[in-house]
Amino acid sequence: MKYPLLETIDFPSNLRELPVDKLEALAAEMRRFIIEAVAAKEGHLGASLGVVELTLALHYAFNTPYDKLIWDVGHQAYGHKIITGRRSVFDTNRQYKGISGFPKMAESEYDAFGTGHSSTSISAALGMAIASRLQGDSKREHIAVIGDASIASGMAFEALNHAGDSKANILVILNDNAIGIDPSVGALKNYLTQVKTGSQRSVNIFEALNFKYFGPVDGHDIDKLLEIFKTLKKIEGPKFLHVITTKGKGLKQAERDQVKYHAPGKFDALTGELSPAKETPQPPKYQDVFGLTLVELAKKNPKIVGITPAMPTGSSMKYMMQAFPERAFDVGIAEQHAVTLAAGIAASGGIAFCAVYSTFLQRAYDQLIHDVALQELPVVFCIDRAGLVGEDGATHHGVFDLAYLRCIPNLIIYAPRNEESLRNMMFTAQAGLDLPIAIRYPRGRGTVIDWKKPFQKVELGKAEKLTEGDQLALIVTGHFTEKALKLAESFSGSIAVYYFGFIKPLDTETLQDVFSTYHNILTLEDGVLKGGLAGAVAEAAVSSNYKGSITSLGIPDEFIEQGSTEELYQSIGLTEAQLKSKIHELLAE
Amino acid sequence: MKYPLLETIDFPSNLRELPVDKLEALAAEMRRFIIEAVAAKEGHLGASLGVVELTLALHYAFNTPYDKLIWDVGHQAYGHKIITGRRSVFDTNRQYKGISGFPKMAESEYDAFGTGHSSTSISAALGMAIASRLQGDSKREHIAVIGDASIASGMAFEALNHAGDSKANILVILNDNAIGIDPSVGALKNYLTQVKTGSQRSVNIFEALNFKYFGPVDGHDIDKLLEIFKTLKKIEGPKFLHVITTKGKGLKQAERDQVKYHAPGKFDALTGELSPAKETPQPPKYQDVFGLTLVELAKKNPKIVGITPAMPTGSSMKYMMQAFPERAFDVGIAEQHAVTLAAGIAASGGIAFCAVYSTFLQRAYDQLIHDVALQELPVVFCIDRAGLVGEDGATHHGVFDLAYLRCIPNLIIYAPRNEESLRNMMFTAQAGLDLPIAIRYPRGRGTVIDWKKPFQKVELGKAEKLTEGDQLALIVTGHFTEKALKLAESFSGSIAVYYFGFIKPLDTETLQDVFSTYHNILTLEDGVLKGGLAGAVAEAAVSSNYKGSITSLGIPDEFIEQGSTEELYQSIGLTEAQLKSKIHELLAE
Repeated sequence: MKYPLLETIDFPSNLRELPVDKLEALAAEMRRFIIEAVAAKEGHLGASLGVVELTLALHYAFNTPYDKLIWDVGHQAYGHKIITGRRSVFDTNRQYKGISGFPKMAESEYDAFGTGHSSTSISAALGMAIASRLQGDSKREHIAVIGDASIASGMAFEALNHAGDSKANILVILNDNAIGIDPSVGALKNYLTQVKTGSQRSVNIFEALNFKYFGPVDGHDIDKLLEIFKTLKKIEGPKFLHVITTKGKGLKQAERDQVKYHAPGKFDALTGELSPAKETPQPPKYQDVFGLTLVELAKKNPKIVGITPAMPTGSSMKYMMQAFPERAFDVGIAEQHAVTLAAGIAASGGIAFCAVYSTFLQRAYDQLIHDVALQELPVVFCIDRAGLVGEDGATHHGVFDLAYLRCIPNLIIYAPRNEESLRNMMFTAQAGLDLPIAIRYPRGRGTVIDWKKPFQKVELGKAEKLTEGDQLALIVTGHFTEKALKLAESFSGSIAVYYFGFIKPLDTETLQDVFSTYHNILTLEDGVLKGGLAGAVAEAAVSSNYKGSITSLGIPDEFIEQGSTEELYQSIGLTEAQLKSKIHELLAE
Repeated sequence: MKYPLLETIDFPSNLRELPVDKLEALAAEMRRFIIEAVAAKEGHLGASLGVVELTLALHYAFNTPYDKLIWDVGHQAYGHKIITGRRSVFDTNRQYKGISGFPKMAESEYDAFGTGHSSTSISAALGMAIASRLQGDSKREHIAVIGDASIASGMAFEALNHAGDSKANILVILNDNAIGIDPSVGALKNYLTQVKTGSQRSVNIFEALNFKYFGPVDGHDIDKLLEIFKTLKKIEGPKFLHVITTKGKGLKQAERDQVKYHAPGKFDALTGELSPAKETPQPPKYQDVFGLTLVELAKKNPKIVGITPAMPTGSSMKYMMQAFPERAFDVGIAEQHAVTLAAGIAASGGIAFCAVYSTFLQRAYDQLIHDVALQELPVVFCIDRAGLVGEDGATHHGVFDLAYLRCIPNLIIYAPRNEESLRNMMFTAQAGLDLPIAIRYPRGRGTVIDWKKPFQKVELGKAEKLTEGDQLALIVTGHFTEKALKLAESFSGSIAVYYFGFIKPLDTETLQDVFSTYHNILTLEDGVLKGGLAGAVAEAAVSSNYKGSITSLGIPDEFIEQGSTEELYQSIGLTEAQLKSKIHELLAE
C-alpha cells in the first residue's frame, strides 16, 4: 500500500480509532498524498500543506460532523476532504463534474458551510452556534479556522465583535502563517508578528473583544494541539486559539516560495520542480497587459495610484508596486476599504486604478455606488477575472458584473475585446476622462501577441461594426468578440459583427442602425443574460419598438460549476461549434 | 440679534478670530440654533447636539478646508454646515432643492467627502492623506470623525488596519456616545465602556493597530479639546483621539430618550415636547406590519430567528427582540456579517428573517450571492425602505435592489402591493418554502387600515390580473399597484392592471397572455428601469417576439436628490396626475 495509514482512514471515525502516536506518521502520508495529487492535477498546494497536523488534530479531538467545522476560504481544506470520504475521488478535485476545490455543503455533511470567498467562517459558525442554542443543544462546538489574511477583513471583525458579546460556543482558530495568497499586510499582521516573537504580551485585541485567548501554539505539533483542544473542549462561550503554521510545510520549494506555490500548476512531486513554461510565443495574459500598461501610464501621469485588495500577484498590480512603491497599495482582503480609499484619492485630485476580481467586487458594491458613482469620482475599476474563471467554480465566476453595474448611474462600463483595447481604454481613462469607469476583462491569455503598440484614445460610448453581413447582426462584447469574428468568417458575408465595448453608455445610435437594418439579431456575452448586455439590448429594442427577432446567448440563470472554461462553455452552449449551429438555425428561420 | 455670536460666523475664518473664551457662549447659541431649526423643519437632532463643542474646536484648531474634515455618516454635521457658509439656508435642510442633510462635496468645499452610509470616513481620509503625500504636502491633516457604532463596522476596521500600517497624517476621532440610531452593541462597545470607566487601561486595540492613542477626553469641554488638538497637530502619522460625548446634549428629553430624539420629527423647541400623533386612524407602517407579523409567526414557528444590522427601531425588529430576546439579534452596523450569520442559522435548520434597508443591503451583496443564494439557504430578506425614501436623499434611496437582485440565481424576489401581501408573503416564506427570498417594501404607511387578517399562502411566481381592460395592460409591482388601481378606475374599462408581485420567478405564462392580448403595455415600478421590472418585461418580450409597444415608467438612470416623495415623483413624472396624462397619450396613439 502506498499510504498504509491514510488508506485506512475513510472517515474521521476511523481516525479516532488510531493511537495518538500514529498521527505524526499519518500526517506525513497525508502531506505526501496532497503533494502527489496537486503535482499531477494542479490545485491549491501551500495552504493545505500548512494545516495537515491541524486538520488531523481537529478531527481527532472534536466530534465532526456533529461538531461543526468551517474552513475559511477553503484553499486549506484538501486534507479535510481526504479524510472525510473523498480520498478516492480526490483526483477529480476542481475538475468538471469532480469534487469542488472548496468545502461545499452539497458534497459532504463534513463540509458544514460552503466557502470560497474569504472571511465568512466566523459569521457562519456563530449562526450555527445560535441555532444550536435555540435547539437546546449546549454541547456542540462550532469551529472556524481562519487565516491571518482573512481575519483582517472587515467582515471577520464584525463577526468577532458580535461573537465576543454572545455566549455562543464558538472556537475561532487563527491559522497564522503571515500570508494569504500574497504576504499579509496591515497593522494587525504586524501586531500578530509581535505576539509570535513575544515582544507583545498576549493580552490582546481578541481578549479585548471578549474571547478567551489561547496560544500562540505550534500548529505542526500534534501533541500540543491535542492537549490544548482538550482544554478548549471544557470551556463554554467564545474561544480564540492562535496557531502558528508554515504555508507549504513539508515541501522545501513551497516553504521558500510561498506565493508561487500557493497554486503552482503542475510540478514534480519529488523535487518540487515546476513544469517548464511553454517555449512558443503566446499572447500575454490580460493581467500582465493591465499591470505593465499601468506602469507605463504612471510614468507619465503622476496622478495615477494603484490599489489592489490582496491580489498583487493575481492581478499583476505587483508591477506597479515594484515600480512605484509609494503609489501602489495592497490593502489586504478589504474590498470595501479599497474602493472608498480609491474614492478618497480621487476626491483629492488623484486617479485611482483599483484592480479587483469581478467576483470580489461584489464585496464593495455599496462603496462603488455611494462613494464613487454618486460623487462622480475618477476611479478606474480594472475588473479582473470577469466571465467564467474555470476550476475555481461557482463561488468565483465573474458573471454578474455587467448586470449589477449597469443599473448604477454615472458609471461607464467597458469590456475590451482584446489586450489592445484593454490597454487603450486604460490610457483613455486617465487622459482627462474624469469619470468613474469599470473595465472588465477575463482571466488568462488574450489573442494579440504583439500588444504593446502606441496608445490610442477610445471614443466614449461608441460601438464598432467589425464585419459586413446581410442576414444577421451579431452584437457582442468583451473577449467573445474574437469568437464572433471567427464565426462571421465561417458564414462569409452573412453576419455583421457589432462590437459593443461599452455596455454603458450604450451606443443607441448604432443600435438604431442595427434595428432598422436587420430582422435577425443575436447578442453574445460571457455574463448573465438577465440584466446584462442581453438586457440592455432588450430594453433598447422595446423602447425603439423593434419588430425583428432577437436571440440572446450568455450565462443562463443558474450557478455554473467548476471545470475548464471550454467544458463549461460546452455545458451552456457557448462553444464555437455550438454557436455555429445556433447561427445556422437562426439563418434558416 | 437672536444669535449675536453665531450670526458673526459665516465661515471658520470668522470663528478663528474669536477669543477662546467666547466659544462656550457660541456653543450655546449653536445648540439653540440647531434645536430651533430641527423643531420647526424636522431632521436629525441628537447627533449634531452631541458634537457642538467638537465641531467648534475642530474648525477653530484646524485649518479647514485646507485640512480635510470628514464626518462619518453625517447626521452630526449640522453644526459644521451652519458655520461653513450654510447658516442662512439651513432652513432648507433636507428639503427638495435645499441643502442636503448629509455632507456633500458639491455643496461646499468644507464637505471634504460626501457621506450618508456609515463607516466610510477613515478610508476616505486615508485616501486623501495618500494623495497629499504624493503631492508633496506633508502638513495637511486628514480628520475622520466617527461614532462608536460606525467604527464597529468592518469597513472601518479595514481602514484602521491599513492606516495604522501607513505613515499617513490621519487623525481618527472616535465620537463615543454609546449609541448610533439605536444603542451600540457588540464586544468593542463593551470594551470602550470599560475604557471610559477606567476599568480597562487605555493601552488598547487602537494602539495595537499602531495608532497613537489619546483620550478619553470630555467632548463637551472645549478648552480640553483645544489643548489636545494643539498636541495632536504636532504629531505626524496615524493618531486616534477618543472623545466622550452625550447624544442630544443640551435638550433634556433628547438626552433622556436618545432613540426617539435621533430624528424626532417636529417638536417644541422650548419644552422639547414632541408634536402629538394624528388622532384619526391611519394605515399602519409597513415596518410595523413586518415587526408584528414576525412576532406572530415566531410564536408558532420555533425555527424563526430575527436579525437586523443596527436598525431595530427603524425596521421594527424591536418587537421581535422584545418578545423573543434569545431569537432576535441587533448585530450593529455589520450588514456583511448579518447576512452570513443568517446563512449560518439557515444552514443549521433555522429560518432567518434578515431585516435590512434596501440601500444598506448593497453592503452585503456578495454575502447574499455567495453564502445564501448559491447554497439555497432559507433566508428571508425583508428589504425595508425600498424605492424613494424622501428627505434622506441620494445616498439612501432604495431603487437599485430589483436590478441587482434579479441577476442572482435561486433567489425569489417579491414586492408586496400592500400590508396584507407583505404579511402573507412573510407567512408563506416560513411555511416550508425552504428557499432564499427577498421581500422589498417601502418606508412608511401603506393603505390597509384593517391589515391583521388570517394568513393566506401566496402562490409562488403567480401574477394577478386585478382589473379588466381592453386597451392597455398595466404591469405593476409593489406599492405602486394601489396607484395603478386608482388610475384604472379613472379610465374605466380601458386598463387591465396586472400585479406582478414576483419579479422573480417571473410569471411568463401570464406575460404570454398579456403579450397575445394587448398591443399596448405599460410597466410601472418604484425602482430603476435599467434591469428592474422594466428590464425583466423587455427581456421576456424580446424572447417572446412581442410585436406590440411597451412603455416603461420608473426611476430613470440618475441619482435622485432629496425631497418629499411626492416632490420627487413629480420630478421624474410618477405622480398620479402625470401618470394619468401619460396613459392618455398612450391610449391616443
